[in-house]
Amino acid sequence: MANDKKIKAGIIGGAGYGGGEMIRLLLNHPNVEISYVNSRSNAGNPLYAVHADLLGETELTFTGEISSDIDVLFLCLGHGEAKKFLEETEIAPAVKVIDLSQDFRLGETVKGREFVYGLPEMQREKIVTANNIANPGCFATGIQLGLLPLAKAGLLQEVHTTGITGSTGAGQSLQATSHFTWRANNISTYKVLTHQHLKEIRRSLQLLQPSFAGDVNFVPVRGDFPRGIWVTSYLQSDLSLEEAQQLYKAYYAGHPFTHVSDKQIDLKQIVNTNKCLIQLEKVGNKLVIHSIEDNLLKGASGQAVQNMNLMFGLDETAGLRLKSVVF
Amino acid sequence: MANDKKIKAGIIGGAGYGGGEMIRLLLNHPNVEISYVNSRSNAGNPLYAVHADLLGETELTFTGEISSDIDVLFLCLGHGEAKKFLEETEIAPAVKVIDLSQDFRLGETVKGREFVYGLPEMQREKIVTANNIANPGCFATGIQLGLLPLAKAGLLQEVHTTGITGSTGAGQSLQATSHFTWRANNISTYKVLTHQHLKEIRRSLQLLQPSFAGDVNFVPVRGDFPRGIWVTSYLQSDLSLEEAQQLYKAYYAGHPFTHVSDKQIDLKQIVNTNKCLIQLEKVGNKLVIHSIEDNLLKGASGQAVQNMNLMFGLDETAGLRLKSVVF
Amino acid sequence: MANDKKIKAGIIGGAGYGGGEMIRLLLNHPNVEISYVNSRSNAGNPLYAVHADLLGETELTFTGEISSDIDVLFLCLGHGEAKKFLEETEIAPAVKVIDLSQDFRLGETVKGREFVYGLPEMQREKIVTANNIANPGCFATGIQLGLLPLAKAGLLQEVHTTGITGSTGAGQSLQATSHFTWRANNISTYKVLTHQHLKEIRRSLQLLQPSFAGDVNFVPVRGDFPRGIWVTSYLQSDLSLEEAQQLYKAYYAGHPFTHVSDKQIDLKQIVNTNKCLIQLEKVGNKLVIHSIEDNLLKGASGQAVQNMNLMFGLDETAGLRLKSVVF
Amino acid sequence: MANDKKIKAGIIGGAGYGGGEMIRLLLNHPNVEISYVNSRSNAGNPLYAVHADLLGETELTFTGEISSDIDVLFLCLGHGEAKKFLEETEIAPAVKVIDLSQDFRLGETVKGREFVYGLPEMQREKIVTANNIANPGCFATGIQLGLLPLAKAGLLQEVHTTGITGSTGAGQSLQATSHFTWRANNISTYKVLTHQHLKEIRRSLQLLQPSFAGDVNFVPVRGDFPRGIWVTSYLQSDLSLEEAQQLYKAYYAGHPFTHVSDKQIDLKQIVNTNKCLIQLEKVGNKLVIHSIEDNLLKGASGQAVQNMNLMFGLDETAGLRLKSVVF
Repeated sequence: MANDKKIKAGIIGGAGYGGGEMIRLLLNHPNVEISYVNSRSNAGNPLYAVHADLLGETELTFTGEISSDIDVLFLCLGHGEAKKFLEETEIAPAVKVIDLSQDFRLGETVKGREFVYGLPEMQREKIVTANNIANPGCFATGIQLGLLPLAKAGLLQEVHTTGITGSTGAGQSLQATSHFTWRANNISTYKVLTHQHLKEIRRSLQLLQPSFAGDVNFVPVRGDFPRGIWVTSYLQSDLSLEEAQQLYKAYYAGHPFTHVSDKQIDLKQIVNTNKCLIQLEKVGNKLVIHSIEDNLLKGASGQAVQNMNLMFGLDETAGLRLKSVVF
Repeated sequence: MANDKKIKAGIIGGAGYGGGEMIRLLLNHPNVEISYVNSRSNAGNPLYAVHADLLGETELTFTGEISSDIDVLFLCLGHGEAKKFLEETEIAPAVKVIDLSQDFRLGETVKGREFVYGLPEMQREKIVTANNIANPGCFATGIQLGLLPLAKAGLLQEVHTTGITGSTGAGQSLQATSHFTWRANNISTYKVLTHQHLKEIRRSLQLLQPSFAGDVNFVPVRGDFPRGIWVTSYLQSDLSLEEAQQLYKAYYAGHPFTHVSDKQIDLKQIVNTNKCLIQLEKVGNKLVIHSIEDNLLKGASGQAVQNMNLMFGLDETAGLRLKSVVF
Repeated sequence: MANDKKIKAGIIGGAGYGGGEMIRLLLNHPNVEISYVNSRSNAGNPLYAVHADLLGETELTFTGEISSDIDVLFLCLGHGEAKKFLEETEIAPAVKVIDLSQDFRLGETVKGREFVYGLPEMQREKIVTANNIANPGCFATGIQLGLLPLAKAGLLQEVHTTGITGSTGAGQSLQATSHFTWRANNISTYKVLTHQHLKEIRRSLQLLQPSFAGDVNFVPVRGDFPRGIWVTSYLQSDLSLEEAQQLYKAYYAGHPFTHVSDKQIDLKQIVNTNKCLIQLEKVGNKLVIHSIEDNLLKGASGQAVQNMNLMFGLDETAGLRLKSVVF
Repeated sequence: MANDKKIKAGIIGGAGYGGGEMIRLLLNHPNVEISYVNSRSNAGNPLYAVHADLLGETELTFTGEISSDIDVLFLCLGHGEAKKFLEETEIAPAVKVIDLSQDFRLGETVKGREFVYGLPEMQREKIVTANNIANPGCFATGIQLGLLPLAKAGLLQEVHTTGITGSTGAGQSLQATSHFTWRANNISTYKVLTHQHLKEIRRSLQLLQPSFAGDVNFVPVRGDFPRGIWVTSYLQSDLSLEEAQQLYKAYYAGHPFTHVSDKQIDLKQIVNTNKCLIQLEKVGNKLVIHSIEDNLLKGASGQAVQNMNLMFGLDETAGLRLKSVVF
């Protein structure tokens, strides 16, 4: 795609965390122009009235209208609302849709639109030709990236997984567990062994390793930090550490955002980037896999842009070479 | 007061932060028994249904009723609600009242009840014989303790003050500025130069130094931590550092909770205690006073217990020898 | 023991985190007087020169000398140093020793001193008559309290455990992973499946359930908060949730610091207390056990005082009714 | 400058916080290639061995050598070391130097190199033609940007300033005040009214308003967050709020990184960006100015890149359109 013909993008649900990150990424994307950011409750207001950090970046305003004069539409709506939106709204079939909700991750369709599960490290070829993308969940991305090479090699067994998420994973609604006084210096768990992302995880793993019948035992933890997801998984494995590292490095060799570290990793290495870092350990007969990502980027809006890049034939990293916050 | 005759205490508004701290302090107070904790919305529930940390400490339940068969009543209500409560509720005149709101700090009365401003480091003699106490505000306590010795010596001039408060100062209601995602790692100010505590501060200072006509310029800052208040004040002064230290140490000599440190202080030295630490510096012709306290204890419920101790002839520190959290 | 005859306590290694908490607890203990706090590097300095929060609490100074004119000696030394200290130092045999290091947790002896593993919820009868106590590790305490009832009932199987610890668990030495800039908002793991506490955990569990041969798979996580340990364990179990709750409540019925909550727990419910809270969940055939404690109190100095209380016939909770920091 | 001829940049002191941010910015800068990153202690190691977040971004290694085959040299050394480096090292006169230390901010020279104080909002014309830049201090940048419009209008009077800084301002050396256990949830001050940046601040202000003789009373505060500086200044002023806002907006009209907000600002709006946001309030006869910036970007490495852009005729914002971390 020539540099002088930019992709026109629309954003639905631009006032939330995911929508805000979409705006931030697309504003700086060299091949995209934002045609509109829809938010009924904020129509007419400048984007920086809601996303105050955008003061000085753009004079764009929210709109309450929706147009099909775009190339791609990002849906940044709550779970259940994306499906409803597409059912109720006329969007021209030529407009590609990238949905950040969980509404189409398990094969659901709407008005003939079929959705490709948008995990590039697993589905790049399908994404390149897709018209609609179901963007993976944040935990689902981190956990799958830690397990895909094993699944592809048919080596998955029952997995034990802990995932610790920043508070942005819970969105911007005010609730007891999002109160600063409560959450600061605190730890708690939720949906232990029952998290909704287990469905899409299992679906992917069985696609790669149909024989896989073991549990993915997942303990989700609320961390006392805003951004990022830490995942530690372990399972029985005959692989040596070196074999496992080779397997993982080979799997991710062509993927620009997922890297295997030979050294101890820590969460802040990836905060504010679209990257996933993976570290392996072998203890006795157990293989330990740590995988980390920014839940709002690789786990949401960043991956959505990555999918868009693939769908439109752009460099996969366009607009996604982000400076980590690191400290 | 003999150990076998305990003071009977009632608490109104026991479900909030201040009420919770009142309960925690009184449960461990050697000379007090809690007669009831009133909370309309939680009546019938155990205290630990709201204050979960009390599991295993007490089987007391909230009550919706109010009795005068007590010696002292603590009002832990919002500003404006305390006055309304006393107007609308029949409380026997013999019951002493300690109000944590700002409703009676400026000389207001209700049904003939007159309130002594309950800052023991300034008013201990009056508190000892008081029937009703208006407990000082959290910022007001920290700022005044930093200035009282100067005011008493007639040395106050225009003061420049910064105060940084933990999130508990804003109470438990959910609001944008109490959202963890927003407040973590964030700083902001509010009510700059106009904070409502300036009234009670000025009232005290002028009581001690009637000639004082200068401004107290106060910049309140929202800190990204839950507990504690840091105050730095400075003003023109002819005192040397040594003279100032002597002045302050002499003033606070008989006061068990307020101490002058010769070394650099930091906020966590007093978190979860009823103490106020003060440190002085002299730079050129400016005297700098740092004063720190836990906003929920010395700045609220702890000081309320200190006042109760004085009113009932107990050791001023009874029930208030608290282990600091320190780390 | 009569109130007028206080237990005389010595503290070795009083300048560290554990030593500081010992001092704070014993200063407020109604039945104890601190005879001395030993710290070679700080001899002669007031305690508050190191533990600045103690300003105004005590004028005690550190000493470089060691005396046997005490009833109990607390060793707050690094791992390996406690054994060395007892080998090299003359301590009268009548002096009871409570060691907070890991030097004597696996049955080690020194100069004829045999050590009882000081986990009161498992060994109270032995502690009551013990002369020497090996105080359990912080993670070891939290993990064991989550598993003891199952072990006693012979129901343990392979366990999967995640433990998240505050930074105080790593002591006060300056290192890359204790730098604020690094640790704030960060997550990392260490000693995955190989943590040294697994030895004492396994020893206890097999004492209760000799048949237990499964792994305790333990993933230790560095949390970005100062105090507290969160533990989530799960394992296969035929118990219903109700049966499990009954089992746990029956086991801990007589223990004043460990309680089973029917509601969701969170870490701050126990910070700055000697308590352990436990919550159970049942998902499919898996039993999930959450257990939380303050690593410096129930996981170290608080449990040491609890052990002392038992050894000297005091109320088990004496000096340990601590106000939680809660917020 | 044509896109195909990139500026060749060297970095001295690439292992510290400032050096790391220089690398991150220059790696993504469209018009720059990094020729070398010098760090004696890390020579031969990949950059990601020190800056682990760079894994997957670059295979560059640190070098111990220094070459003049570059266009610009960034000095990211400690205070005092930059001067020493330039005295002891042969750097071709044609190489432009941008120094991030305080060694040349007050007019100091070395080997005939004269340095322009690199605050673009004050000195853009001089920077465009400069060969050497003394990059301003972090606090100095934030405080000056809050005061420059007043100084240029000759309206400065005695100023009262509070500045709260993230921990990265203190660098990566391990010290008591950088220990996570100490700094988390803590507040303290340092160098009250004596901070070394006051010299360069006063120098700038008097350049714009030679009559200015009042104090800048500056209270520096250690905040418990990693990145960012919050500054609140106030002073007597006859300007109305509207007049002040017009003055500030006019002053910063042509400056792409400094913006005046009509709404309440908060620190995280600028973290991980090169922006400075300013908000004004008027209370009585006092004008209050809040100014915020990321201490490592607008307060250090970002401003250094901004200066480089100006010196080489690039778009002032090249390589500096950074996604804020915002949450």
